[in-house]
Amino acid sequence: MNRVYNFSAGPSMLPEPVLKKAADQMMSYEGCGMSVMEMSHRSKIFESIIYGAEDLIRELMNIPDDYYVFFLQGGASTQFSMVPLNLMNKNNKADFVITGQWSKKAFAEASRYGSTRKVASSEDTVFTYIPKLDKSMFDPEADYVHITHNNTIYGTRYTVLPDTGNVPLVADISSDVLSQEIDVSKFGLLYAGAQKNIAPAGVTVVIVKKELVGNAMDFTPVMLNYETHIKDRSMYNTPPAYCIYIMKLVLEWLKELGGVKAMQARNEEKAAILYDFLDSSDMFRGTVVKEDRSMMNVPFVCPTDELNAKFIAEATENGFVNIKGHRTVGGMRASIYNAMPREGVVKLVEFMKEFEAKNK
Amino acid sequence: MNRVYNFSAGPSMLPEPVLKKAADQMMSYEGCGMSVMEMSHRSKIFESIIYGAEDLIRELMNIPDDYYVFFLQGGASTQFSMVPLNLMNKNNKADFVITGQWSKKAFAEASRYGSTRKVASSEDTVFTYIPKLDKSMFDPEADYVHITHNNTIYGTRYTVLPDTGNVPLVADISSDVLSQEIDVSKFGLLYAGAQKNIAPAGVTVVIVKKELVGNAMDFTPVMLNYETHIKDRSMYNTPPAYCIYIMKLVLEWLKELGGVKAMQARNEEKAAILYDFLDSSDMFRGTVVKEDRSMMNVPFVCPTDELNAKFIAEATENGFVNIKGHRTVGGMRASIYNAMPREGVVKLVEFMKEFEAKNK
Repeated sequence: MNRVYNFSAGPSMLPEPVLKKAADQMMSYEGCGMSVMEMSHRSKIFESIIYGAEDLIRELMNIPDDYYVFFLQGGASTQFSMVPLNLMNKNNKADFVITGQWSKKAFAEASRYGSTRKVASSEDTVFTYIPKLDKSMFDPEADYVHITHNNTIYGTRYTVLPDTGNVPLVADISSDVLSQEIDVSKFGLLYAGAQKNIAPAGVTVVIVKKELVGNAMDFTPVMLNYETHIKDRSMYNTPPAYCIYIMKLVLEWLKELGGVKAMQARNEEKAAILYDFLDSSDMFRGTVVKEDRSMMNVPFVCPTDELNAKFIAEATENGFVNIKGHRTVGGMRASIYNAMPREGVVKLVEFMKEFEAKNK
Repeated sequence: MNRVYNFSAGPSMLPEPVLKKAADQMMSYEGCGMSVMEMSHRSKIFESIIYGAEDLIRELMNIPDDYYVFFLQGGASTQFSMVPLNLMNKNNKADFVITGQWSKKAFAEASRYGSTRKVASSEDTVFTYIPKLDKSMFDPEADYVHITHNNTIYGTRYTVLPDTGNVPLVADISSDVLSQEIDVSKFGLLYAGAQKNIAPAGVTVVIVKKELVGNAMDFTPVMLNYETHIKDRSMYNTPPAYCIYIMKLVLEWLKELGGVKAMQARNEEKAAILYDFLDSSDMFRGTVVKEDRSMMNVPFVCPTDELNAKFIAEATENGFVNIKGHRTVGGMRASIYNAMPREGVVKLVEFMKEFEAKNK
């Protein structure tokens, strides 16, 4: 059972202790004689899993009491519809900052349901930076402002949140949830598809300020109305139970490691190891501006396509897998989410150094 | 690791060999060094899983080539919206046969999007039968007729399909998919939430005649448009990868047992063991009319609430779990899906006999 270092952008690595526990509990969860996959979601034992997961997220992210936290099926793509259907409800307007493919998709979908505006975009350089934003750029009448907090494909992130005044800030945090401390009270709504930092694909976490919920558009499908899921505390219908169970194991693992603050320190160190090498290398270079670099997704390139292809092939042979970059950026991308150990990054950098020495 | 006999209505039992294989492959799927939970869904190895699952469903259900087969997140509840949004597109009308809570929910949601009609209902007796239907009852102008093929809560099923003429028949087969042979060509669309006979909760299988797709309502959210998922063969966005993997293991298990025909024979035998006892018992009796009895969900009652409660408590102690009936029926319900071995039913009946002897 040789495990690889898996740099996939998502679905991505899960902590080994979580997978081991899941394997151990597969035939019988805590002696109940059933797998979590087989349990009635209306049972006490499953309630302890799903509500336990909710409690842990609230604790780890320090979520204020005036926010709902709930779990949905589908990924962030479903939120691209749910956010406008549920929140674009006062003036039917929303502002968007465009920092990559995912913000473009969120914008396109919202535009079908109301009046949307691109406040700023970094598309001019294929999204190598986060646009500078100030309060005067936002429409005070907008129902919300939408940002993508970390850009998985391009490897940028917000290091400062935009000041949107009284307009609720909505953020897609799919690719950096639980990787660093954030002040939830600064947001109207946060959503995160789980498959990068939380759980297997199949569940999305939504955190929303209570006062924003309750006025969805008339034609909103029942399952796309936040109220449906809030009223029944994520159990209007059968939730994606096994994904939620793995989520709980991941949250327990994170708590044991010291919580989000400790994870942030670990992620800062991992990212520094890789970025410091990129900055010192004569062959490899990062593709985005330094001040907006993501701690989760690190795109980088060699000087030629041949070298990129050679590096990817040799890395894969040596157990550094899924390191090919997105087709719109080219080159490589190392996704180093919470579950990637420091050792994985150290070994990758060693391998890059050797590759550089051999191919200069 | 004592496993129980789990009579849960869903999520429900999975075949033991499937769970064992999943546990064995948790840390590394077929030597690739990753769990299926951790794989990029754009990888060749995952494609072999998802397309392998699709091929197996096509083979096992003998699905004609003029049907699409695809996998969605969410359960049948999401289909209650997706079916009208996608199919109620010619005359904006649909006919419904009401045989339980789930058909009522499907009807209620469709009624928000067009003109719906209850063609027949068995609500008068709390859904103890399937209404007699003939072609003259259906509106030839309807875009489709919707039925719930097996009623999980009440324990009834269609043994004969209604003749709807040229109007496409849409069926929720969540609770009896792959339990018996069906002629897919008689349906316009079939959908099945996976958590009863196919996989853990979190994925839904849709089978739809190609000619019916392509004219969704204007405001249909991207993720609720069948075309979105058909165009990208279930991979428009990250699919619920682990659920699909377990599905593939279940389908392989089913094929090895002899396919749907063999499974049907096994299910007929299991159901007969339980129903024959109910018909001969002086204490236990089934709650629905004989000719419409489900092979999957068997509700039954004792003469008094005290005896019901006592039976449930003693059954649970003896490893027959989740056997309490739905609150709208009372008493007990034994769900005996594909994964329930014959032995589980035989032992349950033995236990019921003993209970009857002790408590008469």
